[in-house]
Amino acid sequence: MAVSATAMDELAGPNAMDRLLAATASEMAKVNALILERADSHVDMVPELARYLIEAGGKRLRPMLTVAAALLFGRSNGAHVRFAAAVEFMHNATLLHDDVVDESDLRRGQPAARIVWGNQASVLVGDFLLGQAFMMMVETRDIEALGVLARAAAIMAEGEVFQLAKTRDFATTPDEYQEVIRAKTAMLFEAAAEVGAMTGGADAAGREALKRYGAELGLAFQLVDDVLDYRGEAGTLGKNTGDDLREGKMTLPIILALQAATPAERQVIETALGDPEVSEAVLKQVIGILERHDTLGRTIDQAQAHARAAREALRGLPASEMHTLLGDVAEFSVVRAF
Amino acid sequence: MAVSATAMDELAGPNAMDRLLAATASEMAKVNALILERADSHVDMVPELARYLIEAGGKRLRPMLTVAAALLFGRSNGAHVRFAAAVEFMHNATLLHDDVVDESDLRRGQPAARIVWGNQASVLVGDFLLGQAFMMMVETRDIEALGVLARAAAIMAEGEVFQLAKTRDFATTPDEYQEVIRAKTAMLFEAAAEVGAMTGGADAAGREALKRYGAELGLAFQLVDDVLDYRGEAGTLGKNTGDDLREGKMTLPIILALQAATPAERQVIETALGDPEVSEAVLKQVIGILERHDTLGRTIDQAQAHARAAREALRGLPASEMHTLLGDVAEFSVVRAF
Repeated sequence: MAVSATAMDELAGPNAMDRLLAATASEMAKVNALILERADSHVDMVPELARYLIEAGGKRLRPMLTVAAALLFGRSNGAHVRFAAAVEFMHNATLLHDDVVDESDLRRGQPAARIVWGNQASVLVGDFLLGQAFMMMVETRDIEALGVLARAAAIMAEGEVFQLAKTRDFATTPDEYQEVIRAKTAMLFEAAAEVGAMTGGADAAGREALKRYGAELGLAFQLVDDVLDYRGEAGTLGKNTGDDLREGKMTLPIILALQAATPAERQVIETALGDPEVSEAVLKQVIGILERHDTLGRTIDQAQAHARAAREALRGLPASEMHTLLGDVAEFSVVRAF
Repeated sequence: MAVSATAMDELAGPNAMDRLLAATASEMAKVNALILERADSHVDMVPELARYLIEAGGKRLRPMLTVAAALLFGRSNGAHVRFAAAVEFMHNATLLHDDVVDESDLRRGQPAARIVWGNQASVLVGDFLLGQAFMMMVETRDIEALGVLARAAAIMAEGEVFQLAKTRDFATTPDEYQEVIRAKTAMLFEAAAEVGAMTGGADAAGREALKRYGAELGLAFQLVDDVLDYRGEAGTLGKNTGDDLREGKMTLPIILALQAATPAERQVIETALGDPEVSEAVLKQVIGILERHDTLGRTIDQAQAHARAAREALRGLPASEMHTLLGDVAEFSVVRAF
């Protein structure tokens, strides 16, 4: 666990994420142009807020998955660009609504849109982006792929409600946590990769492989995120360390800690969870408990297992540069936790 | 204007709305069953909140429009049931989000869902209903009709943002108001009627006629709503008189009053608009100004013009019982203002 990010980079191949960025750059340029075009509106507040969020420098990992999956199969009719932009709009709509739900102040290292434009505009512009996402999908005339993302939209929202219902529920099990992250995060990764494969001309087995790859990658990604919430720094991560704790979120590091905790430790965690004003000292105390029971490490172990499963999901597909790259990206997604 | 509701009923034919309810009852029973089925989820909070809203006794006017339009052309393949349920889900998603945006306490005479379950659940269950709406549409395989409603979803949200941007903007013009209500209200009426016609097997002219009918009916409907906001009583209307005033909404009765007001009257209106704590006395004062300049009456005149235009839009279609009924319903939509 004491291994440096650089050393891990070498294990996973030289910077897999940068290689994916390079491999998808020309298609992603089209996606980005479409995103900016479709975030436009004669109602000024819409593009102002949408662009603030869109240009804040997210990784665009989800639409990149769509593009990469389409390139992997290589017989795209061009629809992957519209689907990739739609995936990013769905993701951004979710971010806008989540920040309202979580009362977050920061997003990607900047004040959240709701702080600048208010909760009201954030809810409504989120709805606008979702509507635009479906319009772009309609333009492809591919109702099958549209159905994959429509289902994802419903399941993601359901997962967010489930997470909300589990807030400060100290009896939350690892299985329930898994159900939450499968719905709220992995679902969109899965759908993004699946529609990419579909637009790329994959057969049923190829589509299924990319679907599983996306789901496993999404699980790894969220597990790492939930570790970073107790390890990151606001400047580098774009969010505040301890946000999940303040919001009372039952993430795996906390669930595992509660299972192993002494009564005194349990008391500390239960009191801190969901306290928006929790002190630095108490936050450090909680992190100390997580470290004592190695629950951050055990969460990363699970992330690594999902990253391996993601690579494994691609095994039956023909060898290619993109194939290797997607496998490396899965491993790299866990490296950022170190 | 002193004519009684009963007398107006006779002018517009005996209770057009009840006749529409009867004429669509057997199809609407299927729609209602589908609505309840699709509001279900293993996440308890989703059906609890969704059913609370859905069973609160809304008129189901929008899905009824879809059904009526399909019956008018009479060659439906059954898809109108799914589209009607999708239209109602889109409407309910909008209500959930609007109540959060407007910070409303009442909806259809009951505490708003956000008061019972919180803003967070209201935002997320709204998103869930929108996702379910698109899934039902996907099941019809009719991408053309799906596109009509996807466009409506984006335009409705845009209209809501525009309305938000115009809050307490005393320079708002009647044209800008018209643009707001065309997007936020008439758009869904228009799309509901249009997809009904499409699933009913209408030709291009029939589709266009129902589209125009829906748009005009929606405009009439919203104009009347904006009058009732200054005339209704909480018990009968399901919302509080003066809500629009408290929320700072620039509706036509206010816009016309500001154009005609003396400096003293203008002062009263500008101070009251957007004051959440406005007193009964000041509310009465504002209503007195609206009455002095007859702006409620002038708003109803505009509603009546749109109701006539709705009936007019159907003129080229073959005579039938449903044809007459839809025309009567348009006129009846204004009667409720008396």
